[in-house]
Order: sequence, then structure tokens, then C-alpha cells
Amino acid sequence: MIYKKAQFDIPENLIYLDGNSLGPLPKAVSAKITQTVESEWGTQLIRGWNDCGWMQQPRQLGDRIANIVGAQAGTIVLGDTLSIKVYQAVSAALTMNPQRRVILSDTGNFPTDLYMVQGLINSLDHGYELKTVAPQDVAGAIDEQVAVVMLTQVDYRTGRIHDMQRITELTHKAGAISVWDLAHSAGAIPVELTHSACDFAVGCTYKYLNAGPGAPAFIYVRPDLIETITPALSGWLGHQAPFAFEPNYTPAPTIDRMRVGTPSVLQMAALSCALDLFDDVDMQALRQVSVQLTELFIEQVEARCPELSLASPRDAQDRGSQVSFGFEHGYAVVQALIDQGVIGDFRAPNIMRFGFTPLYISTDDVIRAVDVLESILKDKIWKDPKYQTVKAVT
Amino acid sequence: MIYKKAQFDIPENLIYLDGNSLGPLPKAVSAKITQTVESEWGTQLIRGWNDCGWMQQPRQLGDRIANIVGAQAGTIVLGDTLSIKVYQAVSAALTMNPQRRVILSDTGNFPTDLYMVQGLINSLDHGYELKTVAPQDVAGAIDEQVAVVMLTQVDYRTGRIHDMQRITELTHKAGAISVWDLAHSAGAIPVELTHSACDFAVGCTYKYLNAGPGAPAFIYVRPDLIETITPALSGWLGHQAPFAFEPNYTPAPTIDRMRVGTPSVLQMAALSCALDLFDDVDMQALRQVSVQLTELFIEQVEARCPELSLASPRDAQDRGSQVSFGFEHGYAVVQALIDQGVIGDFRAPNIMRFGFTPLYISTDDVIRAVDVLESILKDKIWKDPKYQTVKAVT
Repeated sequence: MIYKKAQFDIPENLIYLDGNSLGPLPKAVSAKITQTVESEWGTQLIRGWNDCGWMQQPRQLGDRIANIVGAQAGTIVLGDTLSIKVYQAVSAALTMNPQRRVILSDTGNFPTDLYMVQGLINSLDHGYELKTVAPQDVAGAIDEQVAVVMLTQVDYRTGRIHDMQRITELTHKAGAISVWDLAHSAGAIPVELTHSACDFAVGCTYKYLNAGPGAPAFIYVRPDLIETITPALSGWLGHQAPFAFEPNYTPAPTIDRMRVGTPSVLQMAALSCALDLFDDVDMQALRQVSVQLTELFIEQVEARCPELSLASPRDAQDRGSQVSFGFEHGYAVVQALIDQGVIGDFRAPNIMRFGFTPLYISTDDVIRAVDVLESILKDKIWKDPKYQTVKAVT
Repeated sequence: MIYKKAQFDIPENLIYLDGNSLGPLPKAVSAKITQTVESEWGTQLIRGWNDCGWMQQPRQLGDRIANIVGAQAGTIVLGDTLSIKVYQAVSAALTMNPQRRVILSDTGNFPTDLYMVQGLINSLDHGYELKTVAPQDVAGAIDEQVAVVMLTQVDYRTGRIHDMQRITELTHKAGAISVWDLAHSAGAIPVELTHSACDFAVGCTYKYLNAGPGAPAFIYVRPDLIETITPALSGWLGHQAPFAFEPNYTPAPTIDRMRVGTPSVLQMAALSCALDLFDDVDMQALRQVSVQLTELFIEQVEARCPELSLASPRDAQDRGSQVSFGFEHGYAVVQALIDQGVIGDFRAPNIMRFGFTPLYISTDDVIRAVDVLESILKDKIWKDPKYQTVKAVT
């Protein structure tokens, strides 16, 4: 079953089209965290690391995410934030291609991915260059100067999907290493990590996987590479024997080598519940509903809100589980929508984003959302000064 | 008031001498997290970042920790794990001293600090050397080759305290940068970061600060340095305008530049409750009680358990809030103690560690703990094979 809104705590009359930014609360989370706090931390205290399996959870949760993104067990581990995981992947990838100096990405990549690479190559001081091209120019820019191709599969602003399979093939053909960011893919579209043969992937769990604010990130390493990579962030939990407290770092022979420090046990408890909701979800079936929802939204908005211009690919196969429209006054429109119970978000300079998550969004929700949007535009409700004030977090 | 055991959820009849590893559960945490999950995440969803102040918490909590470790407001920010914070501090410190190639530490430092530096200098590939000397030899080893002196103030095995003031002075006199790890200091002993004039400090919040398994770490930067440092881990939340989504990283002019990715909101909720317990605690008064407890424990153990040899400094002023004893069969003794309701822990090769936290440990607890320890040794209870099996996490 795909639609399972009853298993989420979503305020009544709210249409939540922002699961691409922060997923809603799965109902089971609250009791699970209370149990983790009271019966595990409170009762077992330090023994929780062994007796409640806290130490193994980054791997166990990794295996569950592997199921969702088409990877094998033992190839994904949880921890840290996506920014840190990007750093781990790219720094390791650079050591695998020591003669080359270009990291290729696209201008649509999420800024933190680009920022982390800027900080990395700045600190390495070995003449590396971060080269960004327009998303449609990536394939043509993969040449034999390129050490690493780092891309986000689904563009956070437009929802445009890169062809992971094809670009990874081109990357490997050019002798480069591929790093994929699945922030807007995991839980949103079918991903075939094993099949793509990509080298590294990273992702977050608080968007389509609904694990809550500050939920841990994950990293994937292709199984044949795991034992060969050199972790720059060589923390003790990536050591082959963390509790031997040896003076020198020796990386674990498994994906554990991508672990760094102590995992966030309370956030992992939430993640565990959130993943329960995916146990019976077929990602192909979910995708089919997602496409129906985004197609319906585009059709309705284009028919009823001519002021807006589609900023997402029109062809569903090129589009993730979100739809974006450009509008000069997009920020104010989004504030007015939120005020009227339809939550989307805004991304500079003029993009209104709407995420469609089949787990809790129905076709009725889509129609109702467009009703509200249409009235805000028709009556110019967005002109109210209260919708112009820019908030800290957009 | 120092002793406030009633404000913790500690199982009856348990004597918890492992707050130096994972602090116990403050009673208020469970309700606070439920509220954060249900009324913030569940109700506000994405709006929580603004309306519930999630985005500001790493700074606000940092200011509260600053109060505990003798720092000014605006110099500490929460996030990530201690390993990551070590990496940030040392990588920034190295750029401040570009002509030098030695990072000096001691053999008693916690392994992850050493491992993170090993990974860092290995990836930089600029001829850096991590030099470790015995703790007592650190002062004499600070010379003009040294770029960075990185030390943990309180030794995780022995509880030995470095003289932060004096070593920082020597460090600066030699033209080097000081990085202090406060993992076993924050909430345990008075720390005077401002007064010490040290450059960087890092610490964790799940030990003496009782913020729970996986609670975030913190980093301190001396205020006059903040605007000058170059973050290697240049994540979007360290950007001067994260929500402008600019293509290039420009660090925030404040301590925010040491932020990386999305903060762990649920863990921060627990931390917030945990810090409430420190609001009325005078660290000098806490230290006085801590010394009384450790003195009593040493006196009692030495009188009643002659098999054990003190592995901590005998002079209280050189010792943190823990006491360690060496014993060949220490691992088994600790297991037997745990079995009998006295929780300490073991660190290879032969160290039994006992933490004394005045917030919830009384002199009665100390006496009762030694009663149990004495009987385990006298009756050789530790010889039971069930106490020999080594667990994953020690």
C-alpha cells in the first residue's frame, strides 16, 4: 500500500507539500523515542551501547536504506550530516585519481555540496579545481582532466533528474570517479545504486524518508572499493577495533570505515520508525503515484494560474517527486499559501517548490492546493505586507 | 545545590560511576523530547526551523555551555561529533601556522583525536608529522617546530589533568596554536577558556553534561580569531547567508562559521534539558564535592582492596572527576561490578575507571561501591567465566 497518511501525524486541514525539505512525523516515532530515552538510555545507561544495539544501528539502518536505493547490504552506513558525507566521498575519490585535478559538478547542485568541495580543495592546496557547468552540459564536460564527477541526482530547485546510469558510464569511460548525492532521490524515486555501478553516493534521511529534523545522513561505497579507500575523516568508530584504543588508525575492512564519531542514538530511533513505513513500499509503484500527482499538479496550475511558469522538466521521466514554478513574487505567494494551510517552500531567486509524497498526499490534496494557490493569485492576497517579510530560514 | 539525584532517572539500587562515559537521564528530557517531536516537528513541520528556533539552537546552547567552561557568549557552537570538531580545530590551526609541520600531542590522548589528525595530515600530504610524547613530557617538547599543540585536558584513562593555563602559555611563547579537548572537563571541573587564552577547544556533551547518547559536540574559538580562520569543513550552515544559496562559500563572520550541516534537533532538545541542571551549579563548589568523592574512594579502595593499584594522580588537584585503578583482571572485575549494580568501565590494557559526578553520586554511594568491589575481589567473584567474555563496546 502506498497511501498511508493515517500513519503520520499531520495537522488536520494542512496540505503538506514540503516533504522534500522535511518529512512529516510518523505516528510511531514519539513512543519509540520515549522508549529509547526511558527504557534504553534511562535504564541501561552505558550498557545501551551493547545491550540495546546502539553501536550496530548505523549499519543496520544502512542495510534498510540499501533496500530503498537499490544497494546491497553492507554498502551503506549512517552518520553525521550530508555535508560531512560529501566531504568523505570526494576526499576519498580524489585519492583514487591522484593525477587529475578537476572536480566536475553542475550549477544546480545544492550549495553545501559545492561549498564542502571548495573547503576541501582549498585545504588540500594541490591545485584542484571545482568546475561547474549547467546541468545539461555535464555529460559533454566529462573528459580526461576530470578526477571526480559529483552530482545531485534530483535538482533541489527544479526537480530535474540526471540520468545516473548514463553519466556514471561516461564518468567511468573517462577514468573518473562518480559521487552521487541522493538527498532528493532516496524514498522519492527508484534508485539503482548497484546497477548504476557508481562509486560513492550520499544522502539524507529527513526529507522523503521522514526521519525528522537533524536525522543522520548516509554514505554508500561500491562494495569492491570499500577496502581500498582512505578515509580523510578517520574517526575512532571507523577503526577496525575502536575499543582496543590503539594509538594508530587502521580502517575497518567494512563500510564501517566511513563512520566517524558517536552516532546520534535518539535521531536513529526516529529513523528506524520512519523506515518501517517503507518496508512494504515498492519504489516503482510509489513512483507511479508520484508521477500522477506531479502531472495533475502541473496540469491544474497551468490551467488555473497562468501567472506562473513551470520551472521543472515537463516530461515526468526527467522530474523527481517535486514540481517548481517560477514567479517574481514567489516568496510572498509561498508565505500566503502557508498561512492558508498549504505548505510549500521558496528557493531563491524566484522558485516556488512543491513536493508530492505519495505516502501522505492524495489527488484531492493536489486539487485543494491549487484551489488555494489560484485564489491567492487571483485576489492578489500575496500583496499583503505581512507576506513580504523574509524569514531566517526560507 | 550540587546534589540533585532526584532530578535524574537512575534505576533504584544502581550506583552509576560511568557518567564520564555516558551521563544518566535527566528526568525532564523525556517530556521535552516528546514535546519537540509532537508539538514542534509534528505540528510545525518545516516551520519549526523558524518558529521553534531550531536553527538558532546550536548558538544558544553554545552560549549556555560557554557559561560552564569559562568562555564568553558567541564563542561556542554545537554540532557534529567531537571527532569532526577536532578536525575543524586542527585543520584551521594548521593554516594559521603555515611554516611549521609538527602537531604535538600526548600518548594519553583519546585515540579519535590522534586518528583524526592522522587522517587530516595524510590527506593534506604536506609533510606534517603527528608527534606524541608522554603526558609529563609535553611541556618540554613544545618548540619552534611545533605548529599545533593538541591535548585533552583530562586523560580519559587516568583522569590526569594538564595545566591548561601553563601549557597554553608555553604554546604561545613558542609561536604555536593550542587546541584543547574538554571531553572529560566540561561539567566535571572548572574550566577557564577565556582566561587560558587558548585558541581552540572542543568537547562533548554526553559525558558530564548528561545530554544522552549521540548528543552533539561543541567547538570554541577564541573571539579575536573567529573572523580569521578558514574552515576546511565549509558546510552551508557556516555560510554567511545559508539561505541565499550562493554558489560560493563565504564564511559567516561569527562562530557560526564552525557549523557544517543540519543540526540534530532531537538531540539538542535533550541537551537543553540537561543544561538546565547546570543553571544553578557553581563549578568551584561542584569541584569541591567531586574532590571529596574521589579522595574518599581512593582512601577506601586502598584500605580495603590491596590488589588494586592507583592509576590516577594521587594529588587531587592533578586529577579530574574520575579515579582509575589498574588490575590485571580489571575487565572481569568491572563486569562483576556491573552485575552487582555498580557501573564503572574498563579501558585497555588494565584500567578500571570510576567517574564521580556530584550531581547524583553521594559519599554513601562511594562506600557502597567499595563494599561491592571489596567482596568481588575477596571472594574472587570475577573468576566466574561469565565475566570474561569481552563485549563489543567496553
